[in-house]
Amino acid sequence: MDRRTFLGLGLGAVAWPALGRAAPVHPERVRLRELGIVIGELATGPHNAITDVEGVQVGHVTLIEDGGPDFGETSASSVEPLSRVVRTGVTAIVPRTPAFAADFTLNGNGELMGVGSMRRTGLLAGPVLFTNTSSVGAVYDGAVEWMLARDPDLFKSDLQPAPIVGETWAAFLHDEVGRHVRPEHAVAALDAARAGSVAEGCVGGGTGMRAYSFKAGIGTASRKVPCGDQVYTVGVLVQANFGRRPQLRVDGVPVGREITDLMPARGGKSKSMIAAVATDAPLIPIQLQRVCKRVALGMARTGAISTQGSGDLFLAFSTASPEPPDALVMLSDRWISGLFQGVIEATEEAILNSLTTAHTMTGRGGNTIHSLPLDRLVEIMRAYGRLK
Amino acid sequence: MDRRTFLGLGLGAVAWPALGRAAPVHPERVRLRELGIVIGELATGPHNAITDVEGVQVGHVTLIEDGGPDFGETSASSVEPLSRVVRTGVTAIVPRTPAFAADFTLNGNGELMGVGSMRRTGLLAGPVLFTNTSSVGAVYDGAVEWMLARDPDLFKSDLQPAPIVGETWAAFLHDEVGRHVRPEHAVAALDAARAGSVAEGCVGGGTGMRAYSFKAGIGTASRKVPCGDQVYTVGVLVQANFGRRPQLRVDGVPVGREITDLMPARGGKSKSMIAAVATDAPLIPIQLQRVCKRVALGMARTGAISTQGSGDLFLAFSTASPEPPDALVMLSDRWISGLFQGVIEATEEAILNSLTTAHTMTGRGGNTIHSLPLDRLVEIMRAYGRLK
Amino acid sequence: MDRRTFLGLGLGAVAWPALGRAAPVHPERVRLRELGIVIGELATGPHNAITDVEGVQVGHVTLIEDGGPDFGETSASSVEPLSRVVRTGVTAIVPRTPAFAADFTLNGNGELMGVGSMRRTGLLAGPVLFTNTSSVGAVYDGAVEWMLARDPDLFKSDLQPAPIVGETWAAFLHDEVGRHVRPEHAVAALDAARAGSVAEGCVGGGTGMRAYSFKAGIGTASRKVPCGDQVYTVGVLVQANFGRRPQLRVDGVPVGREITDLMPARGGKSKSMIAAVATDAPLIPIQLQRVCKRVALGMARTGAISTQGSGDLFLAFSTASPEPPDALVMLSDRWISGLFQGVIEATEEAILNSLTTAHTMTGRGGNTIHSLPLDRLVEIMRAYGRLK
Amino acid sequence: MDRRTFLGLGLGAVAWPALGRAAPVHPERVRLRELGIVIGELATGPHNAITDVEGVQVGHVTLIEDGGPDFGETSASSVEPLSRVVRTGVTAIVPRTPAFAADFTLNGNGELMGVGSMRRTGLLAGPVLFTNTSSVGAVYDGAVEWMLARDPDLFKSDLQPAPIVGETWAAFLHDEVGRHVRPEHAVAALDAARAGSVAEGCVGGGTGMRAYSFKAGIGTASRKVPCGDQVYTVGVLVQANFGRRPQLRVDGVPVGREITDLMPARGGKSKSMIAAVATDAPLIPIQLQRVCKRVALGMARTGAISTQGSGDLFLAFSTASPEPPDALVMLSDRWISGLFQGVIEATEEAILNSLTTAHTMTGRGGNTIHSLPLDRLVEIMRAYGRLK
Repeated sequence: MDRRTFLGLGLGAVAWPALGRAAPVHPERVRLRELGIVIGELATGPHNAITDVEGVQVGHVTLIEDGGPDFGETSASSVEPLSRVVRTGVTAIVPRTPAFAADFTLNGNGELMGVGSMRRTGLLAGPVLFTNTSSVGAVYDGAVEWMLARDPDLFKSDLQPAPIVGETWAAFLHDEVGRHVRPEHAVAALDAARAGSVAEGCVGGGTGMRAYSFKAGIGTASRKVPCGDQVYTVGVLVQANFGRRPQLRVDGVPVGREITDLMPARGGKSKSMIAAVATDAPLIPIQLQRVCKRVALGMARTGAISTQGSGDLFLAFSTASPEPPDALVMLSDRWISGLFQGVIEATEEAILNSLTTAHTMTGRGGNTIHSLPLDRLVEIMRAYGRLK
Repeated sequence: MDRRTFLGLGLGAVAWPALGRAAPVHPERVRLRELGIVIGELATGPHNAITDVEGVQVGHVTLIEDGGPDFGETSASSVEPLSRVVRTGVTAIVPRTPAFAADFTLNGNGELMGVGSMRRTGLLAGPVLFTNTSSVGAVYDGAVEWMLARDPDLFKSDLQPAPIVGETWAAFLHDEVGRHVRPEHAVAALDAARAGSVAEGCVGGGTGMRAYSFKAGIGTASRKVPCGDQVYTVGVLVQANFGRRPQLRVDGVPVGREITDLMPARGGKSKSMIAAVATDAPLIPIQLQRVCKRVALGMARTGAISTQGSGDLFLAFSTASPEPPDALVMLSDRWISGLFQGVIEATEEAILNSLTTAHTMTGRGGNTIHSLPLDRLVEIMRAYGRLK
Repeated sequence: MDRRTFLGLGLGAVAWPALGRAAPVHPERVRLRELGIVIGELATGPHNAITDVEGVQVGHVTLIEDGGPDFGETSASSVEPLSRVVRTGVTAIVPRTPAFAADFTLNGNGELMGVGSMRRTGLLAGPVLFTNTSSVGAVYDGAVEWMLARDPDLFKSDLQPAPIVGETWAAFLHDEVGRHVRPEHAVAALDAARAGSVAEGCVGGGTGMRAYSFKAGIGTASRKVPCGDQVYTVGVLVQANFGRRPQLRVDGVPVGREITDLMPARGGKSKSMIAAVATDAPLIPIQLQRVCKRVALGMARTGAISTQGSGDLFLAFSTASPEPPDALVMLSDRWISGLFQGVIEATEEAILNSLTTAHTMTGRGGNTIHSLPLDRLVEIMRAYGRLK
Repeated sequence: MDRRTFLGLGLGAVAWPALGRAAPVHPERVRLRELGIVIGELATGPHNAITDVEGVQVGHVTLIEDGGPDFGETSASSVEPLSRVVRTGVTAIVPRTPAFAADFTLNGNGELMGVGSMRRTGLLAGPVLFTNTSSVGAVYDGAVEWMLARDPDLFKSDLQPAPIVGETWAAFLHDEVGRHVRPEHAVAALDAARAGSVAEGCVGGGTGMRAYSFKAGIGTASRKVPCGDQVYTVGVLVQANFGRRPQLRVDGVPVGREITDLMPARGGKSKSMIAAVATDAPLIPIQLQRVCKRVALGMARTGAISTQGSGDLFLAFSTASPEPPDALVMLSDRWISGLFQGVIEATEEAILNSLTTAHTMTGRGGNTIHSLPLDRLVEIMRAYGRLK
């Protein structure tokens, strides 16, 4: 594996600004639909990703460092001191702003930093970034730096230009205490943001994450939703880091009860899921609040109970808001149920994509998280009457 | 069917204070577990009902009136004027009060009347009643009457003794415009409240309800939850009135996609689910808020998307709060995830119980809602590998 | 005093549908501005009332019954049985609907019944009624009856047509246990609603109320607010029933500390304030939430601390919302601070109007609440340098 | 003025860890009570400060840098490049943790970073820090560093140890774009935290702030509140940065309308107030939510309308919560109104203390904010009948 020094920081980090149609590092890991498993009734957008919503870009910076080989690639015989083992990164979602927005907290261990201003005006005025728990301060700081570099007059506006920074807990594979993500990494992820297909699995903020005791990370999906004579798109991007193995359901099938091996050698709690929902439907904030709640229902379909330690925090925004918003269009509520269904289906599929695309990884203290075996997944789905 | 005059009101109503171990009217309708279908991992309480939580009693008053035969029983050749067709009632949940409590709104079309005071102090100070939409004012009025009759000094307390009244929309079978439920019916349901087993299906507030285009109504279930060296009970009671047929899932199996017949002859929207959660675990209000949110996750497992028109409103209370609450015990949060799981499992099963116990009913304008055919349900579960 | 039987109910109630330019019963009681005391900087609307907002009408039904003389008029030598002493009524605020709306709870003992649906869609779909505590169920029931009588197809809409019913606690003068307000009274108040000037003091829902140990009740005021090249109106109507005497401030002057006599002969707690804010400014719900919070600031200026027993519950709505709301105008947030100021000033003045217009009243058990003596008020304001 | 290099950072900053009984830099600036002006009815604690609540410590780091003389001390003839003008700092409030806590947002432009976890469990698990707007990310990062240095196992707990970081907008005097506060400054402020008297005015996070067009900053006050047979303490600390001159009221007297000179030479908006409330009363989170709302009422008494651009964000915590909170004491709600009054009085006085203790300061671009002239304040209070 190529080992570069990222941004001259001397971290010895291996970083992929993993974007666009970059060749997948693990070609055997594929998206759920490539296995023939289809979630729900609605059609997907062209990339089946949050970027199917026009005006939404995504960028990742992935930080992996050992002082030795990538343990995800080889079997490690000796482990570096804990403080050198880095398995994290930053995922940046850059919408056209200002955008009407709202959030919902299913379980609030942790928070989406910066949502305060957004809740007041209903306007998202900056980018959205996902990282690991101990890095939120640095990522927030870097995002403010990036925003000021693009517009030094930013703070003169009456609308405070706050980024939103979410996090989940990577300590099983990653040295959370070391605070390895610095402001520069946030800037790099923001600069890397692009439209088009989105890298998933062990990338960006999802690098060190796991779900249902399998390796997970970033996942995304989208749906096209007919609303009267219009068709709108909803896209969801998740950083999945939650769930006990026996709870895992794939389209209702108890897959987690069928795969009882491939467990981590020792404990360590998965905790949380953070998610962003984008849509081009013209929704005002009170409608986006309702849309955002449906992420919880999609999460539930995969088996989640949203435990004590979870920071299950969701954000939804609409790219349709005009600027300035003195006159605006508002989707009639009579069409909103279709968007609810779209969010639920896209959330369920995004979580499952994070599982099917992530690869087995070893990290801090030699801890290994196995990936969900795709052949066995297909076999189980067949046994339960879901695939021919 | 026996046609009695209820409570001397001259309504010509047929009313069953359906309680305790009363002989079921429709013995062919059974609870989900009697079909061999088990939801989740945790054990149930002795009655698998909200009344398994000590200090919780339930009573129903069921109002069915036609001026003709009970259309649910026979095939009706002619239909009475709409304003005479009554398919509703009142379900009363009577906890020991004051009880710490909290609520959660998944989708807020409608409301749980009376939650205002409860949100301030975190204390539930009266009974909880479920009825149909246009009857909330009358039921609230009756509940206040009942409370004052038991304690004329009630209002002298600093703690305002508000009942909680929830509703769902019965217009497909019932004359909502007629406002047939009167304060006396609320009093009667409260007087009828008992511990022990709970009548389910087409009873009380659930009489005219439907879910997933099948007849539904009241359902309940409970779970025993180990929390450290204690075992606590959570019980859930729902009034289910929501969902489109293709969405219905039973333990993850797409039952609604397999039964495409037995649809209502014409449209009419299902709308909402209201639910009460009881527990004897010593939870303070901020914990009950979290517990209450999990009803949404259990609902999602049956296929719900919580549509635009839904009033999906949930209440949770703990019977463990001391009186007065100057000193109290609080469950450590480290045990709370088990309660979350219990609520999710019990909610899913309560909804399904409301479907398997409800019987086919005909009402306003000759509208008929069919019951979920239990033999076909079992057959489908077998085909999807869930039953032997 | 004219003693009529109201609506043939046999209650022996004395009722004034006190509206429009009806001759004041107590001409010595005047509004604050008639004393030369001006609150704030902004100009008032033509009636200095909530009805200055186009499309807003107000009606009162006042219920006073004794079986003896009106104790507010004469000195009573003997007191009727408690259950016959009625000092209450209903105040109806009828806006053009649907109207965007939001609410705020400063202290939630009690609630605005019916706000549930409004919180979901941000749309107020029915009238707003104020009454006494034990009457909310009956008033809600009557309001639904009134709505259905005007539009039998009301419930067919996807938007549930809920009235909003608020209450405060009248037990010091009024028999709360007797539940004397019936659905018919709500209907009558709604039918009586008119544009133009609004009766204040001991009328409608405010009949039995008191504030700062003086007689109070209904009060209203309005402000004209320049917003860019437009001038919008905000109007506030309060039912004031809160505060200890020493707390009372009039434009910052500690009037309550200066008038230590005229206290009720025995205790009895004042509790709450409910308020409605109307505006013709085109605000969306998230903006109305912010506007509504400012009622608390206006209330604070009169000395309120919003005690344990208070149900301080406020509602704000905009009559500018189009129907259907698929396309709409939204005021830029850059103008919203002026509306905040208008609400604060109008709230402060409405509370003080409820004090200066209310007259001394005797009620249940011979309890008397004195009115704020206007000559002494003027004298105190002069002594503190506020009036010449 | 002494110009030291702070913490070897090469910033050229002048820093006072202004604490305890340090000699005041501006002895002519005194607290409100030293002028004979008393707010409210309740007695103060020994220091009339938030530190009167046992277990609460406060520390400041003040950053002032120019490349020239301190413009607050002398009249500056030439002004440094904007990016070198620093007028900010960090104020750290360090409670015994975990402590039950809650927050309230009066107007949400900006946010208290880190409140997410606290809202879930109701437990404050780290210190509270106030700074300027662009520094929140760095201060949060430093606070996490400080917490980890004291307990490397911190993140292993199920309770996420989040600091709370609040901010207000210092751009009139300070270079907000420069992001001059670094993580080290947060660490230093936390290390400097002490019990006892608290420095006020132009210190810590309040260094560059202003209120009602006068120089302001940090202010604090406390009250002793009888609750049954106990006496509890509430303390408030504010960072005041809001209000237009004509709005200023001191104990109800329109001081701002009387002092129309001493205005800043050019515009610039004041924005926000952040506040922390501490108490040793045993309150659970739902009670602390109510206590926290009363900060808004105290703020209103000084004339605030909480404008569009305001981030008026308040936090309240109780040091009485046991650890672990499995068994706990809860104050009966019947005593809570006294605490409400204490918070309102202490908030009003803390804001006024921030005005009377702050000194005239010049900063970015030669902008000067004058201090409230104390002799004129006393004179006005006399003219309005408040002082002899």
